[in-house]
Amino acid sequence: MALALAKEELSEYLKQVFPQVAEDFALERLDEDSLTMRLLVTDRHLRPGGTVSGPSMFGLADVAVYAMVLARKGRQALAVTTNCSMDFMRKPEGARDMLADCRLLKLGRTLAVGDVLMYSEGSDKPVARATMTYSLPPEGSAAARMG
Amino acid sequence: MALALAKEELSEYLKQVFPQVAEDFALERLDEDSLTMRLLVTDRHLRPGGTVSGPSMFGLADVAVYAMVLARKGRQALAVTTNCSMDFMRKPEGARDMLADCRLLKLGRTLAVGDVLMYSEGSDKPVARATMTYSLPPEGSAAARMG
Amino acid sequence: MALALAKEELSEYLKQVFPQVAEDFALERLDEDSLTMRLLVTDRHLRPGGTVSGPSMFGLADVAVYAMVLARKGRQALAVTTNCSMDFMRKPEGARDMLADCRLLKLGRTLAVGDVLMYSEGSDKPVARATMTYSLPPEGSAAARMG
Amino acid sequence: MALALAKEELSEYLKQVFPQVAEDFALERLDEDSLTMRLLVTDRHLRPGGTVSGPSMFGLADVAVYAMVLARKGRQALAVTTNCSMDFMRKPEGARDMLADCRLLKLGRTLAVGDVLMYSEGSDKPVARATMTYSLPPEGSAAARMG
Repeated sequence: MALALAKEELSEYLKQVFPQVAEDFALERLDEDSLTMRLLVTDRHLRPGGTVSGPSMFGLADVAVYAMVLARKGRQALAVTTNCSMDFMRKPEGARDMLADCRLLKLGRTLAVGDVLMYSEGSDKPVARATMTYSLPPEGSAAARMG
Repeated sequence: MALALAKEELSEYLKQVFPQVAEDFALERLDEDSLTMRLLVTDRHLRPGGTVSGPSMFGLADVAVYAMVLARKGRQALAVTTNCSMDFMRKPEGARDMLADCRLLKLGRTLAVGDVLMYSEGSDKPVARATMTYSLPPEGSAAARMG
Repeated sequence: MALALAKEELSEYLKQVFPQVAEDFALERLDEDSLTMRLLVTDRHLRPGGTVSGPSMFGLADVAVYAMVLARKGRQALAVTTNCSMDFMRKPEGARDMLADCRLLKLGRTLAVGDVLMYSEGSDKPVARATMTYSLPPEGSAAARMG
Repeated sequence: MALALAKEELSEYLKQVFPQVAEDFALERLDEDSLTMRLLVTDRHLRPGGTVSGPSMFGLADVAVYAMVLARKGRQALAVTTNCSMDFMRKPEGARDMLADCRLLKLGRTLAVGDVLMYSEGSDKPVARATMTYSLPPEGSAAARMG
């Protein structure tokens, strides 16, 4: 159950594989089966009315679970999202950063499942929840080594 | 945030509104925003191979969230499930009872959302997760009073 | 894209692998990427109030997609449900049979996805929709041959 | 079942309420219970590797169902997404536009449900599917009039 990547290694690797989004996310916390990811909210994450948009929350949940998988499996750039369910429960608070608490529920040979609760910074009421399933490349394959 | 029904009152009410399933479920624990519901596994909950069936786990998650809503809103027989997402992550362990840990994530005026993790008794690895959304009858309506 | 099992072969095989539920379901129609499955509604499928229960609709959707996978892949008793999302949109009409129209959206090497719309017989308004994901055993494995 | 807004009125209104995204989407087709929405793919919709990103597909599905609700209910800027389920089934084809076929499955007093299949232009294999639930403001309320 040990981590394959420590917090700094994982942050560094995410910046390599997602250069376009490196400025959007910051890894706040990492342990063996959970982490906290921050969405650094700027204008492009907002929808009319000034609250964080649905696509931005989707992106946050997706990156949080992806990072959790990488933390445990190591550098595997080809894990792909196969399923997502989300519930939007409260209005995000204006343009505050959002924090995503991710728990890894399953890390199998071919599938990983992570659960995410998202909060506006400074509030303890969940704005949204998400579950993401990732399909993992077979171990030993070229895809699995490619990181 | 107080409970509208205590544990015994809630158990009693569930037996009244779900007489057919009274022998299937037992409320193990209740606090203000979470509870544990037990599925008393018998042959009719099993599928070929002898493990707990998907429909039985759906039923367990559904009753757990419904009970949580009743515990907070009081007797409201007409709340209806509108949405469900489930992930089946591990094989249940044979014919053991299943325990569902339910957290209430939102209790709004018209919608309630609850999250459920299900375990085979004696194991701490989640067999399945579910999120259930309930639509609530408007307060003051005949439906809301009918319990 | 040809079927691996014709309608009668598939019906017969379902009765072998699901003996407990053989009396609950009837395959009405099958083509290369869709089918219709009937839930033969009896008292045990009803909830208080006399309408078809959520677990019964879950079971119907699950069997419909499973049958679709078998129709294409052949006898594979070990495909397992990994994910389900359902929306309950209307009250089923009393104790009428329910019909599930299933479309196969993806049949990959390791995952299959099917979409289901469920109706009360005689009505064209969908009562519920479901999407089911099945994880498939690797081809050539003992599991894949076991049917 | 008539439309409250014709295709041109709806396109115009979407541009007013979503000025930030007016250049991302184009309404291709509208009838009484379905529509097709185009995602005008540019660099900012792509992820590393050059295919359309998950958040972009979430945004496309969300706008498609929102537009469908507006087409039937008229100008109601405050309908909010409460639930989403998505399945990602195939890799989008490079940087081609994506087309979302949306069917309205339910339009109730307080909830609307729409189903979406998304394709890369020129292909008939679905890249992703989504179901979106919208919560509608009570009719006659200030929110419902605000459009």
